Amino acid sequence: MNTFGRVFRATTFGESFSAAVGAVIDGCPSGIRLGANDIQRELDRRKPGQSILASQRKESDRAEILSGTLDGKTLGTPIAVMVKNEDADEKPYEKIKDLLRPGHADFTYREKYGHVDWRGGSRASGRETVGRVIGGAIAKKFLSFKKIEVTGHVSEIAGIVAKKMDFDGIAKNSDKTAVRCADLKAARKMESAILASRNGRDSLGGIAEIRARGVPPGLGEPVFGKLDAEIAVAMMSIGSVKGVEIGSGFAASQMKGSENNDAFYMKNGKVSLRSNNAGGILGGISTGEEIVVRIAVKPTPSIARKQDTVNVKTMKDSEIEVMGRHDPCICPRIVPVAEAMLSLTLADNYLLWSAYENSKAR
Amino acid sequence: MNTFGRVFRATTFGESFSAAVGAVIDGCPSGIRLGANDIQRELDRRKPGQSILASQRKESDRAEILSGTLDGKTLGTPIAVMVKNEDADEKPYEKIKDLLRPGHADFTYREKYGHVDWRGGSRASGRETVGRVIGGAIAKKFLSFKKIEVTGHVSEIAGIVAKKMDFDGIAKNSDKTAVRCADLKAARKMESAILASRNGRDSLGGIAEIRARGVPPGLGEPVFGKLDAEIAVAMMSIGSVKGVEIGSGFAASQMKGSENNDAFYMKNGKVSLRSNNAGGILGGISTGEEIVVRIAVKPTPSIARKQDTVNVKTMKDSEIEVMGRHDPCICPRIVPVAEAMLSLTLADNYLLWSAYENSKAR
Amino acid sequence: MNTFGRVFRATTFGESFSAAVGAVIDGCPSGIRLGANDIQRELDRRKPGQSILASQRKESDRAEILSGTLDGKTLGTPIAVMVKNEDADEKPYEKIKDLLRPGHADFTYREKYGHVDWRGGSRASGRETVGRVIGGAIAKKFLSFKKIEVTGHVSEIAGIVAKKMDFDGIAKNSDKTAVRCADLKAARKMESAILASRNGRDSLGGIAEIRARGVPPGLGEPVFGKLDAEIAVAMMSIGSVKGVEIGSGFAASQMKGSENNDAFYMKNGKVSLRSNNAGGILGGISTGEEIVVRIAVKPTPSIARKQDTVNVKTMKDSEIEVMGRHDPCICPRIVPVAEAMLSLTLADNYLLWSAYENSKAR
Amino acid sequence: MNTFGRVFRATTFGESFSAAVGAVIDGCPSGIRLGANDIQRELDRRKPGQSILASQRKESDRAEILSGTLDGKTLGTPIAVMVKNEDADEKPYEKIKDLLRPGHADFTYREKYGHVDWRGGSRASGRETVGRVIGGAIAKKFLSFKKIEVTGHVSEIAGIVAKKMDFDGIAKNSDKTAVRCADLKAARKMESAILASRNGRDSLGGIAEIRARGVPPGLGEPVFGKLDAEIAVAMMSIGSVKGVEIGSGFAASQMKGSENNDAFYMKNGKVSLRSNNAGGILGGISTGEEIVVRIAVKPTPSIARKQDTVNVKTMKDSEIEVMGRHDPCICPRIVPVAEAMLSLTLADNYLLWSAYENSKAR
Repeated sequence: MNTFGRVFRATTFGESFSAAVGAVIDGCPSGIRLGANDIQRELDRRKPGQSILASQRKESDRAEILSGTLDGKTLGTPIAVMVKNEDADEKPYEKIKDLLRPGHADFTYREKYGHVDWRGGSRASGRETVGRVIGGAIAKKFLSFKKIEVTGHVSEIAGIVAKKMDFDGIAKNSDKTAVRCADLKAARKMESAILASRNGRDSLGGIAEIRARGVPPGLGEPVFGKLDAEIAVAMMSIGSVKGVEIGSGFAASQMKGSENNDAFYMKNGKVSLRSNNAGGILGGISTGEEIVVRIAVKPTPSIARKQDTVNVKTMKDSEIEVMGRHDPCICPRIVPVAEAMLSLTLADNYLLWSAYENSKAR
Repeated sequence: MNTFGRVFRATTFGESFSAAVGAVIDGCPSGIRLGANDIQRELDRRKPGQSILASQRKESDRAEILSGTLDGKTLGTPIAVMVKNEDADEKPYEKIKDLLRPGHADFTYREKYGHVDWRGGSRASGRETVGRVIGGAIAKKFLSFKKIEVTGHVSEIAGIVAKKMDFDGIAKNSDKTAVRCADLKAARKMESAILASRNGRDSLGGIAEIRARGVPPGLGEPVFGKLDAEIAVAMMSIGSVKGVEIGSGFAASQMKGSENNDAFYMKNGKVSLRSNNAGGILGGISTGEEIVVRIAVKPTPSIARKQDTVNVKTMKDSEIEVMGRHDPCICPRIVPVAEAMLSLTLADNYLLWSAYENSKAR
Repeated sequence: MNTFGRVFRATTFGESFSAAVGAVIDGCPSGIRLGANDIQRELDRRKPGQSILASQRKESDRAEILSGTLDGKTLGTPIAVMVKNEDADEKPYEKIKDLLRPGHADFTYREKYGHVDWRGGSRASGRETVGRVIGGAIAKKFLSFKKIEVTGHVSEIAGIVAKKMDFDGIAKNSDKTAVRCADLKAARKMESAILASRNGRDSLGGIAEIRARGVPPGLGEPVFGKLDAEIAVAMMSIGSVKGVEIGSGFAASQMKGSENNDAFYMKNGKVSLRSNNAGGILGGISTGEEIVVRIAVKPTPSIARKQDTVNVKTMKDSEIEVMGRHDPCICPRIVPVAEAMLSLTLADNYLLWSAYENSKAR
Repeated sequence: MNTFGRVFRATTFGESFSAAVGAVIDGCPSGIRLGANDIQRELDRRKPGQSILASQRKESDRAEILSGTLDGKTLGTPIAVMVKNEDADEKPYEKIKDLLRPGHADFTYREKYGHVDWRGGSRASGRETVGRVIGGAIAKKFLSFKKIEVTGHVSEIAGIVAKKMDFDGIAKNSDKTAVRCADLKAARKMESAILASRNGRDSLGGIAEIRARGVPPGLGEPVFGKLDAEIAVAMMSIGSVKGVEIGSGFAASQMKGSENNDAFYMKNGKVSLRSNNAGGILGGISTGEEIVVRIAVKPTPSIARKQDTVNVKTMKDSEIEVMGRHDPCICPRIVPVAEAMLSLTLADNYLLWSAYENSKAR
């Protein structure tokens, strides 16, 4: 199932070492301004080789729009976008071809598919996220036409916690640091921690926070299609994400009702909420407040130190050292991917909401 | 969207005060043993009035199978099951008809639907979960035929953390306590905490842990249909759940790669994992180890103390005290619901896996 | 797959001899006026025992709304409707339990499911259409709120062809005759033909024509979701339907381009079409003209004369005479079912159209 | 909705004049042999410029596989295939930019999308079918691994009806004639009729018959997912198709039950059918006999003679002559497209069947 969404839908394709990766975006309304540069900007935020903190794979990641636009505007037809794989270096994988990399999908892909692409993670590679970012870039353009904005940053790495920041603060500073943390002081400490970990032939995980602003009340379908449930699947579908929370999230489990409830009050003639523990969603439907999501990212499984594993050719115990060009902490590069997934989720839910909003009897 | 699943699918219906609640289960294979008692057993675990810790609403919650079985076995056709609503008391709601209950979906339902059922939460009521438990009971029967088991318990309330327990330990003791925590010592403390909170006209949240055993390797579709993503949407779609984590989850964000990676080794001629930080899922595909899920449950929003709110008739600031028959902590009753959702997710993924497993070339 | 539609969705349940049949309608916008009588009216048009031309099974077919409405208006939540099976007479089926009825689904259900309900056709029974008619009645209410009307009649039986009639002519007279043909003269001939066939222990098929008026231009999704393709699946999913055509249909295959093309011209300031060979759909999208659909209905397979068959217990050649309460021609009772399916299709496509229509940039 | 299928799924993209057309095939099992040549063979059957009977657009239609295979075998991941558009000549369209072509989707696309690609039909162009044929070629490879074959030919044009032929007869001769009719005598007459029509600045429609052999009993989901309904949507989604029938189809509406019923009998120890009026499907489920489908194709709407229309710039009545490179009869080139759609439908239903077949209790 390589398609995400019900009405605004992204189908992604491509392995780490196939000829190309990309996506087909189906269901984007017509007449939306969209150029290759809109997609390129988001791809550049995701791409490897941006700093010493990231994988040194060299990919220009140039977006080619194959269909779906004319004169810089969407046609309402599927928008196919392709990015050629350029710097695919099989050599490091040749040596460990028969060894299962711990923390990776090598074992489960073998069990599921039998015939697998041993060169670099196949669809479980981070390279798969190129398609998500393409879809997210198009979704962002649609959302911006509806005055909805999405931003995000790294909020915690190695016990270093960014201070609480508002939407504008995050949006302004997030991309200024290699670690993509909008608290510039914390960012410096995080960077040191990542470099130290890499020098120790190890890796780190972290937490990213993603937000949306301008979402009108009413988005999300109750019961199974709750907006928070849709966000949860969007986020947990990103490789390396092991947890998702909305608003006060896991902290809510420690709070009392009187602490966690957000009081209603009138503000400028509209119903508003005094706090946002709900993270912008009540009963699975958006409140109009900011959507606040946090995701737990596991430490990069590829580490250069010796680990126990199994050789699937000999079916015997063995050892492995995973060399190659890996991110010592994937968190900074997951931020644009998570923004993309939130954008796709909101675009899809916006269209569904629009269907009912314009069809209900008043 | 009141349907969950792609191949094994549950469509639920019913409001808190409608004539009935229930579900239609579509896609359950034929020939599976199923009687009303199989469904009743799970409904009884969910139903209100079981103890002093739960809502005192009196519902016999009797399951009536309307279609889809013959001679105690499934026909492969849709299984419709209905539970009549009996003890629907509108009075407490009449008084607060125009007041938005903080932490509830009153505001967002009004925004989304305009015309709403003010009597007790409509589809955002916990009563909606009757349909989920019906679906889960049928899924469990199918899974048991495939030797897959699901269990769960409350692992934390008010800072009281249950000790680490294995599958059998949880399965054996979970239902023995009103708080549905398998660590009987912790359970007693949790119960005291809940009663104390209720006496203080307040409520508590908590964390539940749900597990599955016997899942063969290979379940789950990579990319958007990852098994952990499917579980995330299943869990987050339950009212009051604000966070989901798989395996080491949020703790993984604090760990190093060398700590979080699960080493492979040969055991009885099969590839096995020495630890289970992955929670039974790598690259979105089951490893064959236990599936381990934890969910964060927010404190019950209905509390008997005064809270600020808005009167939607006068559109003025107001106050509310939510009386009625509420659970002071919803966590114990969410356990069977979360088990149901995990069961539905696994049944759906089992069927999909089966399609490919039997069609691939070897 | 017992669910029809993407946004406006009907899930049906129930066998010929189960406790009940019914449907859950999900995605109907809120605030639409709907009472049990709206559903009853359509069920009464479908139900058996209406005339000498139909099955003599006695069913009151009383619709009970279980959820989804309050004060005679929809809530936007799933509308569950149940009809109890009352007059289920197993006896005629007991005798032919092990004989495959030619033209029926006995053989294929056995192959597919193994464990089957031998009493009267299970889900392949005409009784399954009760759920469709429930869904269609709700869809019709929604469509009427949008000024869209659906009608239909029998246009051909046994070589007797009704004269060409316009929408109003069909709508006015269709229900006046037992054979449900709006051309009253042809209707009398058709009735005689059906009675003659029944007396000869045989059965007849026929053609029904279904139309919709008031559909705005723009409905339907190009490529796989073409409006005509959606209608085709809707119609062909009805038991006994073996062919579907739109507009000039099979006749178009005999025409020249110059004959079949519908010329455009300006009428009252709007683009109009001089003819309607397209049947209201061009490129899979509605033109604003009437939607015109015809379906081919096969003769009722249950006939009281001897037919060759197989006994699945002995696995030997055998003979069968299908006694019981069967329609000598199912065409008249298929009309309300086909109207229901067209209504469901249009409601679903209206909502989808509405999503894009209100989201596109102009 | 540019995706077809539930488990074996094809998403197509590309306009008549975009950079490329293509498809992403998701859900093809792993390990299936597949090379670019397998796709090329089918594309060559569809491509323009093959004979004097077809459009003279010159396209090499070279298939590039972008992902999803390794060493000539599928990986189980999405297979993206792209075909560049080469011979896109805008000039004939420039002149008629503001004129609605009768019988085309110009009007409805404008109504639906506002911003449209006026160059050659956009997604309503026959060029869109390249993606279908790509998907069908992959589906055929999968089906052949399961011993299922698909073939087809033109069975009627301009009143010239091909004689009844069996599967092998059709498969052997279909591609031997430019008109793709396996009855070589009828083929010659059809070719003369097409040339005569083109010389008269007009066009023809026709009927194509598509068959599948080797389909095991049990495929298809009763009720809305009937195999014949799935085939109907597959066929009617092809541009220019205005009617679909299965087995005896519209002729069944003229037959008596005693004529149309297919008797069962024992043959080589298996239940068989003496005739195949059902077209291989009973109750929506395959019987094991050949699947027989016929589609009605309308005459090509592009004709070189004067037709009445509207100028959408001036909003006044006008006239149009559609010059350019059009097929005087599209029927011969629709055959491989219809085979592709039947193949996709069967591959999807095979996988679903496989899921249940391997999960049911016996």
